[in-house]
Amino acid sequence: MMTRRATGLGMIASGAVAAMPDTILAAELAPIDLPPPARQGGKPLMEALLLRRSIRGYAATPLPPQLLSDLLWAANGINRPTGDRTAPYWRHIMVTDIYAAMADGVWLYEPKSHSLQPYLRGDIRAATGLQDFVGTAPLDLVYVAHGDRMGDIRAEERRLYASVDVGFIGQNVYLFCASAGLATVFRGAVPYDDLTRKLQLPAEQFVTFAQTVGFPGE
Amino acid sequence: MMTRRATGLGMIASGAVAAMPDTILAAELAPIDLPPPARQGGKPLMEALLLRRSIRGYAATPLPPQLLSDLLWAANGINRPTGDRTAPYWRHIMVTDIYAAMADGVWLYEPKSHSLQPYLRGDIRAATGLQDFVGTAPLDLVYVAHGDRMGDIRAEERRLYASVDVGFIGQNVYLFCASAGLATVFRGAVPYDDLTRKLQLPAEQFVTFAQTVGFPGE
Repeated sequence: MMTRRATGLGMIASGAVAAMPDTILAAELAPIDLPPPARQGGKPLMEALLLRRSIRGYAATPLPPQLLSDLLWAANGINRPTGDRTAPYWRHIMVTDIYAAMADGVWLYEPKSHSLQPYLRGDIRAATGLQDFVGTAPLDLVYVAHGDRMGDIRAEERRLYASVDVGFIGQNVYLFCASAGLATVFRGAVPYDDLTRKLQLPAEQFVTFAQTVGFPGE
Repeated sequence: MMTRRATGLGMIASGAVAAMPDTILAAELAPIDLPPPARQGGKPLMEALLLRRSIRGYAATPLPPQLLSDLLWAANGINRPTGDRTAPYWRHIMVTDIYAAMADGVWLYEPKSHSLQPYLRGDIRAATGLQDFVGTAPLDLVYVAHGDRMGDIRAEERRLYASVDVGFIGQNVYLFCASAGLATVFRGAVPYDDLTRKLQLPAEQFVTFAQTVGFPGE
């Protein structure tokens, strides 16, 4: 039975806040309607591989909805009736969430409904990395792992397996950007403590890596 | 100045053996001439993403040379004059080698010359994994990291960053296989100690993951 003291402690813990993003953190943040993803087209695979590279100069232009939709589906969308994804994942346990940090706020990509759910008001892009361009490019993807779903394995191994899964997803983003004429860079240069605090992540969730996406620019 | 004692120790260390694969380990193993990779064509990227999945049933049919060439280039080939690759890599330090274990032996993929260098005689495919299909599928890729190139960072972090790099490469292999009608599965189920011994890896090199490739079958 929960005592008043325990209830009070629960209310001020960051986990309690993060469990209610819709009502507290994301108030007044508009949902983003994603059009259905184009599950065909794009450059021939070998050409996308030929064009694959990291780019660190971005225009401020936001990504149009269709491009954002296609990008997120390519990254980690559901690609068959089993619910499996465009990227493989560790022991068939899905541990990675993709957060999309944009100028107005942060949204959580929900592959089942292929939608972006409002998560957090405000512009945290600059806090997703250490380089200047991360604060002005239109989109920073933040890859967050559910350590809580990884059972009894050690923290170091949680980070390892979650990071490999993010490598698969990150390469999908690279190839999508190569095919669509977008710029991207996968980044391990992340202020982990600050970003974790800003994202108000529940205990046992942790940021693995981030990846900036936008149109090529200065 | 090297003493006779130090020289003797060097000669019996496994590193000394592994440094001479051409003369000792790979004697009588034929080089494999790879045709130039097709750096165009393949399925449209979104279709490859739609078809991306893990397959655990393989025919024994070997991969024809052109398919093997295209696969290795897609995995981690050089895609521009800078020498950079189809996959990004940690801090611009290339730490990953790809070994190709096939029925007759093991070859090392050399991206600069886009060639397969003889490395080790004999069939070690069954030692690259824990499932039966790894011993009969025509190709097991073994991803090996050069810990020696990773400077002062801790062993756990070496494994982490090397593993992310392999995630990028592994996803390239997945998408190439989806595009080319091949089967593949990326595997963390690896008998690490036994495989490291069989590959006679120098100190500080370590196996990260393995990935089976072949035509779909039983």
